[in-house]
Amino acid sequence: MSVSTNTTVSPAWIAVDWGSSNLRAWALDGDDRVIAEASAPRGMLGLAADEFEGALLEVVGDWLPPAAGNRPTEVLVCGMAGARQGWVEAAYLALDAGATDTLGRLGGQLTPVITRDARLRVRIVPGLCQHASPDGGEAFDVMRGEETQLSGLVARHLDFSGAVCLPGTHAKWARLEAGRITGFTTFMSGELYQLLSRDSVLKHSLHADDLADAAQRAAYLGGIDTAMAAPERLSAELFGIRARDLLDASLPGDARRGERLAARLSGLVLGLELAGATATLAPGSPVVLIGAEALCRRYRIALEHRGFAVGQHANADMILAGLGRIHHATPPATP
Amino acid sequence: MSVSTNTTVSPAWIAVDWGSSNLRAWALDGDDRVIAEASAPRGMLGLAADEFEGALLEVVGDWLPPAAGNRPTEVLVCGMAGARQGWVEAAYLALDAGATDTLGRLGGQLTPVITRDARLRVRIVPGLCQHASPDGGEAFDVMRGEETQLSGLVARHLDFSGAVCLPGTHAKWARLEAGRITGFTTFMSGELYQLLSRDSVLKHSLHADDLADAAQRAAYLGGIDTAMAAPERLSAELFGIRARDLLDASLPGDARRGERLAARLSGLVLGLELAGATATLAPGSPVVLIGAEALCRRYRIALEHRGFAVGQHANADMILAGLGRIHHATPPATP
Repeated sequence: MSVSTNTTVSPAWIAVDWGSSNLRAWALDGDDRVIAEASAPRGMLGLAADEFEGALLEVVGDWLPPAAGNRPTEVLVCGMAGARQGWVEAAYLALDAGATDTLGRLGGQLTPVITRDARLRVRIVPGLCQHASPDGGEAFDVMRGEETQLSGLVARHLDFSGAVCLPGTHAKWARLEAGRITGFTTFMSGELYQLLSRDSVLKHSLHADDLADAAQRAAYLGGIDTAMAAPERLSAELFGIRARDLLDASLPGDARRGERLAARLSGLVLGLELAGATATLAPGSPVVLIGAEALCRRYRIALEHRGFAVGQHANADMILAGLGRIHHATPPATP
Repeated sequence: MSVSTNTTVSPAWIAVDWGSSNLRAWALDGDDRVIAEASAPRGMLGLAADEFEGALLEVVGDWLPPAAGNRPTEVLVCGMAGARQGWVEAAYLALDAGATDTLGRLGGQLTPVITRDARLRVRIVPGLCQHASPDGGEAFDVMRGEETQLSGLVARHLDFSGAVCLPGTHAKWARLEAGRITGFTTFMSGELYQLLSRDSVLKHSLHADDLADAAQRAAYLGGIDTAMAAPERLSAELFGIRARDLLDASLPGDARRGERLAARLSGLVLGLELAGATATLAPGSPVVLIGAEALCRRYRIALEHRGFAVGQHANADMILAGLGRIHHATPPATP
């Protein structure tokens, strides 16, 4: 666990991003400024339902008053802690692509959690779900955690319109119009890359790549272009990585072949995603990335190569802005 | 090990299909009729180079004369025993899509194996490799074992023209023109399906399917059509299986959801392959399947649904016909 050394923290409220693997918390003052932050590797996947309160107290306990006063401290949680296998299930809010502002309704749909510690008033943000539309325009989909980041983007850019991509194991692409979400699609590319690079026959041919190297970057972009030009050939191009390795092994001076092949694999898998996710985007249109720097950089290189105008925000900034927006939209705690 | 009970076997030659996991052998008379057969789970992946001869003798030893006579028994081997990690490497024969008959040249390119047992005269059939063509028409690719089955098809149908599919972990699609191979492509679909169904987040949503069930067959064909119509959405449709499961879990009377979702996954992954493999085939054109019955049936259902004329041959028939063609094309053993 990492905890800030500020020993005089007395937050107005606490923001928590509780994912599958990690718990991250921020103490905020009355102006939503961060006065302390802490994190621990106590994610949803490692906790039974009755262990969540203890894990939370380990991380934020020092920020709470010694005893419950008139008013417990608000703790607003987003992420997988609200999954069925999490602390308390926060039912999905169904995306309404029509009249209403789904993101704006998150604050009215929080799921309260009854805690043993009376100093806490915990509420969990719902995820979003999308049902298939009869015309095939939308497919079944779910998100949990990303809705808060999208809320944060809208909090910063009230009338934002455009495509937003949140890279990850299951990358989310959302479409926003004038600050409202109109649809989203999840791509399993991150997991697909992990499976192929770690568990498939290709693992024998790969070494960790570095896109700062020109030849590896070229191999990566070659993969992007190949998959976008002919997505139907993906599983053939995947085997082609193995075949190249077998056939090129005897070439002299072929250092860093494994790195280039890993870069190509990464490009092929992301290229398939981009073929699907950008099919309806106009050339040169803006794409906003929200995520961790290293992964966003990989997306940025590909998207800029394909001519899109790329913006970028850090995960934590959007989570804080989103939880702030939701926090202020909820009715104040009654004593 | 399974060995036939014929105790008076004295073969003219022995045919061996030696794959990654299994070794299968046939004793043949002077007219290439099978007089005995045997197999053992002694595949290339489980053997060190110096263990191959012993494994072979365990399976075919009873078919050899007690002592070496003037003439050792010909043993013709195809498959992964000829890989770099196998018994002795049988270098790939490069596909020449131009003037020459590459399949017809296999018999002149056998790799002899020096054995301790003088009763054996072992030769290994080369695999085929294909180098990328400057115009992008062909890609790097390799096969090892399938070249023998394709030879068998040509032995049975001298002037065969059309598409041939050999389903498997790494499915091979070959194009033949008047009995000559002009190109081939390997699709990793089988391995992709295994990774997704066993190791990905989707494993929680799946139960083994049965395409004899009408609803599961419909889900399978829905996956085929979806992937063929929009291959660029594959990794989104994959996550859609998870989302459907999460969102449908509360529906009443939804028995066999896991079976239908597994059928859909199978359809999506095979549909991606068919989108790539059949892109240049005319509607209604013939596709010949060579492989195991259950897997061929899965392909046949999809291909007939898409309007192709499907033929089918059993693995063993094509291996025997292919090894027979190659055996008779090789010069006789010199005493």
